[in-house]
Amino acid sequence: MQSLDTLVSQLSLEEKVALCSGEDFWHTKSIPHVNIPSLMMCDGPHGLRKQPGDAHFLEMNDSEEAICFPTAATTACSFDVQLLKRLGQALGEECQAEKVGLLLGPAINIKRSPLGGRNFEYFSEDPHLTGELATAYILGLQQKGVGACLKHFACNNQESYRMTASSEVDERTLHEIYFPGFEKAIKEAKPWSVMSSYNRLNGEYVGESYSLLTNLLRDKWGFDGFIVSDWGAVNDRVSALKAGMDLQMPGHHGMNDDVLLKAVKHNEIDEEVLDQSVKRLLKKVFKSYENNKQVVVSKDQHHQLAKEIAVESAVLLKNQGVLPLKESGNRLAFIGEFAKAPRYQGGGSSHIHPYQIDTALEAVKGITDVSFAQGFLLEDHPLNERLLHQAIELAKSCDVAVIFAGLPESFETEFYDRPHMKLPAVQNKLIQEVAKVQKNTVVVLHNGAPVEMPWVNEVNAILEMYLSGEAVGEATVDLLFGRANPSGKLAETFPLRLEDHPAYLSTKVVDHRVYYNERLFVGYRYYDARKMDVLFPFGHGCSYTTFQYDQLKLSRGQIAEDEPLVVQVNVTNTGNYFGKEVVQLYVENPTGDTIRPVKELRQFKKVALSPKQTQTVTFTLTKRDFSYYHPTLHDWYVETGEYGILLAKSSRDIVLRGTIKVKGKTKVPTGITTNTTFNELIKNPKLSQMITELIETMKEDYQLDIGMIQEMPIRALASFQVVDQEMVNRLVTILNILNK
Amino acid sequence: MQSLDTLVSQLSLEEKVALCSGEDFWHTKSIPHVNIPSLMMCDGPHGLRKQPGDAHFLEMNDSEEAICFPTAATTACSFDVQLLKRLGQALGEECQAEKVGLLLGPAINIKRSPLGGRNFEYFSEDPHLTGELATAYILGLQQKGVGACLKHFACNNQESYRMTASSEVDERTLHEIYFPGFEKAIKEAKPWSVMSSYNRLNGEYVGESYSLLTNLLRDKWGFDGFIVSDWGAVNDRVSALKAGMDLQMPGHHGMNDDVLLKAVKHNEIDEEVLDQSVKRLLKKVFKSYENNKQVVVSKDQHHQLAKEIAVESAVLLKNQGVLPLKESGNRLAFIGEFAKAPRYQGGGSSHIHPYQIDTALEAVKGITDVSFAQGFLLEDHPLNERLLHQAIELAKSCDVAVIFAGLPESFETEFYDRPHMKLPAVQNKLIQEVAKVQKNTVVVLHNGAPVEMPWVNEVNAILEMYLSGEAVGEATVDLLFGRANPSGKLAETFPLRLEDHPAYLSTKVVDHRVYYNERLFVGYRYYDARKMDVLFPFGHGCSYTTFQYDQLKLSRGQIAEDEPLVVQVNVTNTGNYFGKEVVQLYVENPTGDTIRPVKELRQFKKVALSPKQTQTVTFTLTKRDFSYYHPTLHDWYVETGEYGILLAKSSRDIVLRGTIKVKGKTKVPTGITTNTTFNELIKNPKLSQMITELIETMKEDYQLDIGMIQEMPIRALASFQVVDQEMVNRLVTILNILNK
Repeated sequence: MQSLDTLVSQLSLEEKVALCSGEDFWHTKSIPHVNIPSLMMCDGPHGLRKQPGDAHFLEMNDSEEAICFPTAATTACSFDVQLLKRLGQALGEECQAEKVGLLLGPAINIKRSPLGGRNFEYFSEDPHLTGELATAYILGLQQKGVGACLKHFACNNQESYRMTASSEVDERTLHEIYFPGFEKAIKEAKPWSVMSSYNRLNGEYVGESYSLLTNLLRDKWGFDGFIVSDWGAVNDRVSALKAGMDLQMPGHHGMNDDVLLKAVKHNEIDEEVLDQSVKRLLKKVFKSYENNKQVVVSKDQHHQLAKEIAVESAVLLKNQGVLPLKESGNRLAFIGEFAKAPRYQGGGSSHIHPYQIDTALEAVKGITDVSFAQGFLLEDHPLNERLLHQAIELAKSCDVAVIFAGLPESFETEFYDRPHMKLPAVQNKLIQEVAKVQKNTVVVLHNGAPVEMPWVNEVNAILEMYLSGEAVGEATVDLLFGRANPSGKLAETFPLRLEDHPAYLSTKVVDHRVYYNERLFVGYRYYDARKMDVLFPFGHGCSYTTFQYDQLKLSRGQIAEDEPLVVQVNVTNTGNYFGKEVVQLYVENPTGDTIRPVKELRQFKKVALSPKQTQTVTFTLTKRDFSYYHPTLHDWYVETGEYGILLAKSSRDIVLRGTIKVKGKTKVPTGITTNTTFNELIKNPKLSQMITELIETMKEDYQLDIGMIQEMPIRALASFQVVDQEMVNRLVTILNILNK
Repeated sequence: MQSLDTLVSQLSLEEKVALCSGEDFWHTKSIPHVNIPSLMMCDGPHGLRKQPGDAHFLEMNDSEEAICFPTAATTACSFDVQLLKRLGQALGEECQAEKVGLLLGPAINIKRSPLGGRNFEYFSEDPHLTGELATAYILGLQQKGVGACLKHFACNNQESYRMTASSEVDERTLHEIYFPGFEKAIKEAKPWSVMSSYNRLNGEYVGESYSLLTNLLRDKWGFDGFIVSDWGAVNDRVSALKAGMDLQMPGHHGMNDDVLLKAVKHNEIDEEVLDQSVKRLLKKVFKSYENNKQVVVSKDQHHQLAKEIAVESAVLLKNQGVLPLKESGNRLAFIGEFAKAPRYQGGGSSHIHPYQIDTALEAVKGITDVSFAQGFLLEDHPLNERLLHQAIELAKSCDVAVIFAGLPESFETEFYDRPHMKLPAVQNKLIQEVAKVQKNTVVVLHNGAPVEMPWVNEVNAILEMYLSGEAVGEATVDLLFGRANPSGKLAETFPLRLEDHPAYLSTKVVDHRVYYNERLFVGYRYYDARKMDVLFPFGHGCSYTTFQYDQLKLSRGQIAEDEPLVVQVNVTNTGNYFGKEVVQLYVENPTGDTIRPVKELRQFKKVALSPKQTQTVTFTLTKRDFSYYHPTLHDWYVETGEYGILLAKSSRDIVLRGTIKVKGKTKVPTGITTNTTFNELIKNPKLSQMITELIETMKEDYQLDIGMIQEMPIRALASFQVVDQEMVNRLVTILNILNK
């Protein structure tokens, strides 16, 4: 093939601008005379939503049959990067089979509030977990020759006013919370494309931000793919192209071609900028074309994989012993609409036309007999007394009642945020009434985001399936009966009440702006810092077996910031079931001069252990794991201090704790000025002695002590008439010399 | 006297710049040849701290004897504007007697965090209460011919880095929380002077801010006095003078005279600006001179007033029946250091050399015999087992134990913030141990700000005296024995734990900036919005009698924003003691499109009632009581909607509730653009029908509904290929015409 440069030089200006928008809703343009093929893109992160050729994007529910894998909110709970890679591979195969060159996923926005309408499509409240999972997913997908589209960059954390609101976020919070997932995935997995989000960020449309799309993504993080607009997002096409947003989708019937053409002709856009965009796009278009393979997918095998992922991701929130269920000798009741019509995906652009739905009620037939009561109608908001009564009577007559509850599809979807965090009242009522008559009550939940559980203390066990894809029914039954051992851990905190969540007072969009006032304190970072009780903490999940952690070893007691720290711990399965454990490593930050979260997830590993088996788990921590983003340096910075190394089963279940002294090497430029305070001087190792002596001297003339003057700047010595201004100036000069 | 204009025209440039800084720490300069006298200023808000002529400001504890009245944290709990006026009058008399022309008070910063080192000097977390009390105090003081200095303007809400930190606060929060106290006091009481605070506000030193000192204070609020720097605050004298900061204190040995001189000569400052500053200052200097009177103060009478204020301000936090104490027939134990050496004021510039200290132990001798045990040593951090043991034994042997606890002086003072909210551990231990052996345990607290009370459920009664001035002992005893009936109400919330307070994650100053991330949600506004339990709520306080509220009457069911609403309620003393009740009126805001506190204190009245007596309490609400500060309008704005009128005994004890429909008159300019969302259009009464019909039409061609497109802007119709750009532009034109 000729070089891209040569190819592009053969294109007319009209052809080049034409390439910068789609042919229709799902294809880039082909230009046959130079053999430029079209690239087909397809929604969504957990399965293909391939629409018929002439379908309009907004016709949401009309697409080809495909495997519906568990959504990201679910798969994140697996804490299993290998599993996410296999998911990516499977999706890649489905894309190849359907001639789809680019899959619009993964979606990795941080869960700032539990109410976000698309939370079910996103992984976590934690940036490290998000980044690890996204990286694995992309590597898997792209291994199959299909491109990933990492989305939605950035800070599109709610649906309310999503196409016009500006997320107002400070620089440090962006780099510590909202950017790291993108940063890691781009650096380590090299996605073919990134989708710029609908919203504005600090006033500017992300799709029109040169500093975000070019300076940050390309120059700083090394992103070498193309950037595509979220569907319908483009506000000002000229600004967008200049910022580095290469491809407008959908095609907009070419309406912006003229706009771009004029801009180039009037030198508003340098033609070289246009050429760069075209080359970035074509590079991937040809890559896709070259990678195109004839693939036949076994839908049954993929269905099995969907089941495996569902099993690995389910979180056993609570179990007072009723689980696993016995396969015989018990009278079992399955109660609730979701047992025969499970909820397994969310609404909107990720909505799949599934291949085959497993229901729990069908799946259990292979194991044992159960009785069924419907309990409630999904969309039946007024209580149905008859269904409730039947369910209670059935529960009474059995040994165990398993209630299949969850959120109806209308409760969580792209396009709007949830107004509250409750299950439908009829379901809460059902659970409470059944629990009154049946102490062995199990609740199985189908939902894309946390719900309040007023009955949490009244039931024996709770199995959180999230939105677990089309094989949810078989997966649930396997877990309930112990044919599989739950090993998922929550990738987000379940707060006790809606009013508890960090962004509760600042999610409302006023005048098209939403302020991220909680700053760094998102998810467990907030509940930890405020020492709040939660319903279930980040990282939490029960198992049918037990694990013991011991022999924590740190390779060093002290390191410089550029030296690695190796952490080892032995994990033993001390129970009677084969099981998997997610070993979580949090670094506890020193309480220094800046504001930092108490602790942060820095590493995790999922290990599989047979009863009595022990495995040594090894982590290597490096500079970034001790850093925070320093807004003055505009870079990562290691504060010298003692850090805690916490080995944990959840963010609230710290099992072992070590400490490491880390010595930072970066010096923050701290010129001494007349506005430097005595506090700051005393903390400066080079100056503290001199300053202490100075204060001691002054103490004799004025009854002052360090307590009184600690907050004073040097200039106060003059303004309080202790010395004159000349003396203050000389002192500053001397201090600056000593500080060198 | 000749006119000020004539006088100033006779001054040399050197003389004029000289007048812009003090002669020394406490005096303005005199210029004898034109008969300009010196004005003496004096610390502090709750009593005179008149230092000997040659004393240095920083020699904190060296001053003339004066009555130490209760501090502002205490007097605020009186909720009694007449009482604050009398306090102002008494202070005015003391100033006159001591030839002090201007008193540096009141100090009215909002209590953003319970840890602020000067909280004891400030009134409240609520701006309305703050403004009412400050106004009354200033009116009383200035009635006596002595000037007030309203301080510290603005947002000096903590001591940490107070001379260099920038308080980062959004415009709306400033106007709704941090400014209204200043605004009301300036408009209604016309203080002679305002003190500009140490800190920066949104990056700029307050003392150098033209927009704050001139545009806001003078032009918008009509302030006509002079502005003085906080002591030692001046950073750049030229910028300060240009901004409108007239007087630098202390004198700085005239070091800035040359600086100003040069600036005028080089036309950096217009001489007219200098003249204005000089005139503003001299106007008050002469006013003081003319108001100078020979006054002899009866210190004993003022001591009695100090006692009365202490009585009216004390808050009975809890009483399960042990109070009031019987004057005979009971064996009483007084336990704790504070019974014989009470804490009654805070540290720093407000520290008074008191006239006469009343101790509870002395005061009680006039009533009955009590036994005493010291219990703990104030500065004795390790537990003194012997003292503890004695106290327990004494408590066991008596019928009632009264523990005098509180914070040592070193715990709260100007210059630094508290690191925590705890009493010394030895005191908590003592209270818990005594409560174990004595069910009739009373705790009397001496502290300038909230403390955690791990023993709150273990004691029978808690009397919060705050820092109650030199007559605290007599006041306490009168209240304990029912010679006076407690009537104070908390002017701030007592949170359960430090971690609960709204600013907990954002009080740390990093890089000389502190972000007010909680925004409007200060004090009860936060705890209400998050529905949090608190230890004791804002407005709470018990009495020995009971009050009943009934017959709530609203003059109208609906008003326009410029019409007044008269609210009446009958309050009856239904108990057996004479007592006073603070009737609190909160307005509950509608849950409209903006972010608002759930409810806000808008009015209060303290009424005195004998047993069985009823009084009708009348409130008049006007526009401002329903308004919020609209950041687009830069003005107060009434949202049309239904407002709750809550008559309450505390912020958490709402007794009666009415509702009023208020119709706003101001139209927020809302031009329709291509970025206006369908949500906004549907909410617009002029457009909603047309838009609904439009969506209905589109629904037939595309399977879309309002849920899906509600967050979309009009431009999305084109970018999603529903219509072309031309059609979008036409639609916007039509909508703008309809919207006129």
